[in-house]
Amino acid sequence: MSERRYDPTHDEWVTFATHRQDRTYKPATADCPLCPTHPGGPETEIAREHFEIAVFDNRFPSLSPTPPAPDLAGTDLVPVEPAYGHCEVVVFTDDHEATLASVGERRIRLLVDAWAHRFAALAADGKIGYVLPFENKGEAVGVTLHHPHGQIYAYPEVPPRPAREQRAARHHRDRTGRCVFCDVVAQESGGPRVVVEGTHFLAGVPPWARFPYEVDIWARDHVGTLPELDAGARDDLARVLARVLAGYDAYFGFRTSYLLGVHSAPVNVPDDERGLGHLHLEICPPHRGGGKLKYLAGSETFGGAFLTDVAPEVAGPRLREAAERATVPA
Amino acid sequence: MSERRYDPTHDEWVTFATHRQDRTYKPATADCPLCPTHPGGPETEIAREHFEIAVFDNRFPSLSPTPPAPDLAGTDLVPVEPAYGHCEVVVFTDDHEATLASVGERRIRLLVDAWAHRFAALAADGKIGYVLPFENKGEAVGVTLHHPHGQIYAYPEVPPRPAREQRAARHHRDRTGRCVFCDVVAQESGGPRVVVEGTHFLAGVPPWARFPYEVDIWARDHVGTLPELDAGARDDLARVLARVLAGYDAYFGFRTSYLLGVHSAPVNVPDDERGLGHLHLEICPPHRGGGKLKYLAGSETFGGAFLTDVAPEVAGPRLREAAERATVPA
Repeated sequence: MSERRYDPTHDEWVTFATHRQDRTYKPATADCPLCPTHPGGPETEIAREHFEIAVFDNRFPSLSPTPPAPDLAGTDLVPVEPAYGHCEVVVFTDDHEATLASVGERRIRLLVDAWAHRFAALAADGKIGYVLPFENKGEAVGVTLHHPHGQIYAYPEVPPRPAREQRAARHHRDRTGRCVFCDVVAQESGGPRVVVEGTHFLAGVPPWARFPYEVDIWARDHVGTLPELDAGARDDLARVLARVLAGYDAYFGFRTSYLLGVHSAPVNVPDDERGLGHLHLEICPPHRGGGKLKYLAGSETFGGAFLTDVAPEVAGPRLREAAERATVPA
Repeated sequence: MSERRYDPTHDEWVTFATHRQDRTYKPATADCPLCPTHPGGPETEIAREHFEIAVFDNRFPSLSPTPPAPDLAGTDLVPVEPAYGHCEVVVFTDDHEATLASVGERRIRLLVDAWAHRFAALAADGKIGYVLPFENKGEAVGVTLHHPHGQIYAYPEVPPRPAREQRAARHHRDRTGRCVFCDVVAQESGGPRVVVEGTHFLAGVPPWARFPYEVDIWARDHVGTLPELDAGARDDLARVLARVLAGYDAYFGFRTSYLLGVHSAPVNVPDDERGLGHLHLEICPPHRGGGKLKYLAGSETFGGAFLTDVAPEVAGPRLREAAERATVPA
């Protein structure tokens, strides 16, 4: 069963994909489906001996360009639709034991190109409204495949969280005439919460960080999507992201778990809507220090109200110091 | 440091409470602050030898009726406010080894009265906009104190998730003239996703369940808040809730972890806004079967788009069967 159902009590769509129950779950290294296919070994997703970055369709997709007809008959109250969309896997390296933090700045530069290339390809599907590249890193966030990889989801509409950003950006523009993210960059650059100052991108703990060690990476210029970045801006994004990730590992002293998402302008929407979008990355580790984890519990789940117990003015300098002393592999 | 900061990029407030870093973390049973104070033992939060239900102010509150002045100077872009509000702890039993599922229907009936009593008391503070009783149950959802207890947060405005419900309810009313939750009850009662049919409350897996074994408990009548329930309706809520919780433990075969939240009408708002609210409980276990957990990862965190891999038409009958055969302590 694979379909989307509308929740009329929250005005949002939930995607059901029951075949995902059978998805590969923490396989042994020898059975890793994201490793290169070795001569004489089992066939993996990637039939090459070596590769740098590999992108392919998720074998257990939540959204599909050829979705089956829904099982459930929808009602006027709860409409049901085919789960249209795209789910791609982006493998960062053929080294099973690496992490995005360890593959080096050159490889991350290649990843930025791969993200931009796939973003443009998925946005070219006129039935897509939003493209979200992300990485779920580490067992603490529930990862079921350890080989370093991320994913790209292409949704048939702007999903709730980016839609909330669009509304907030419109509200700010109506009030001030300016882009809210441009104002954030102007306020944060050179300030106490900065982690890495790039030439085209700024990384910092936002003053409203929802996770204790959240770092956002904002484009300094008002640019909406990855494909719009020129080579110099892509170089800078790779440099800033590589240093932020190396800084996490240096600060925590272990391979940091995190969720990483790339927020962009919606696609296939009117120009006015697209113009509100401002490219930025959000990186949210679940760690809150001392081996403790931040959980999303009652206030976050039922209130949508986040509680944080580390001040951004404390987290920022800690992560900046660690990012400065970290060795970033070339 | 204790304060609220406005996130202008998502139009929401985040609460910072750095003293909560020092909150009691998984104490040994002998040091449990929620046990009765035993003669000769350390002083706990509850200076009685025995009790049924105890309610008191959280010693490590996120929100306080006497909040300190904020540390950070707000800006026009990122306003900062004192973290005004209330955080109460509700202890369900003096038995450290019990759970809400094990304390029995009579005690849950008393809990409904305690929730209603505290709801009315907190709503009487004109600076409060929303009262949220909830329970975080089990280590899988990050609980730091094992003694069976819940919490009640009183926020100075309607937080994002209930505000989303209010908007959805208004949209539905504008479109149909009816309450969306009343329509849900009419559609779901007697259907395949029902878990427990009560006389005043209906428990079922919602057709749009965000968690694989989510159960919502909806008031059958259009009632906004707990204090409005008469004795018969409270009896029924206790009976339905007790059976749902017993059913979880019977189905999973272990003490089920879950998040439980009570969604109500906002308080101290205009009548029209209050009238949109419809009392219901949401219970979200993180379990997805086979010892595996549901994590909120990239799609949920950055998209706000939930993915589920169990069909509500499968989860509903499983939980109904378990709830029917479960023994509910009196």
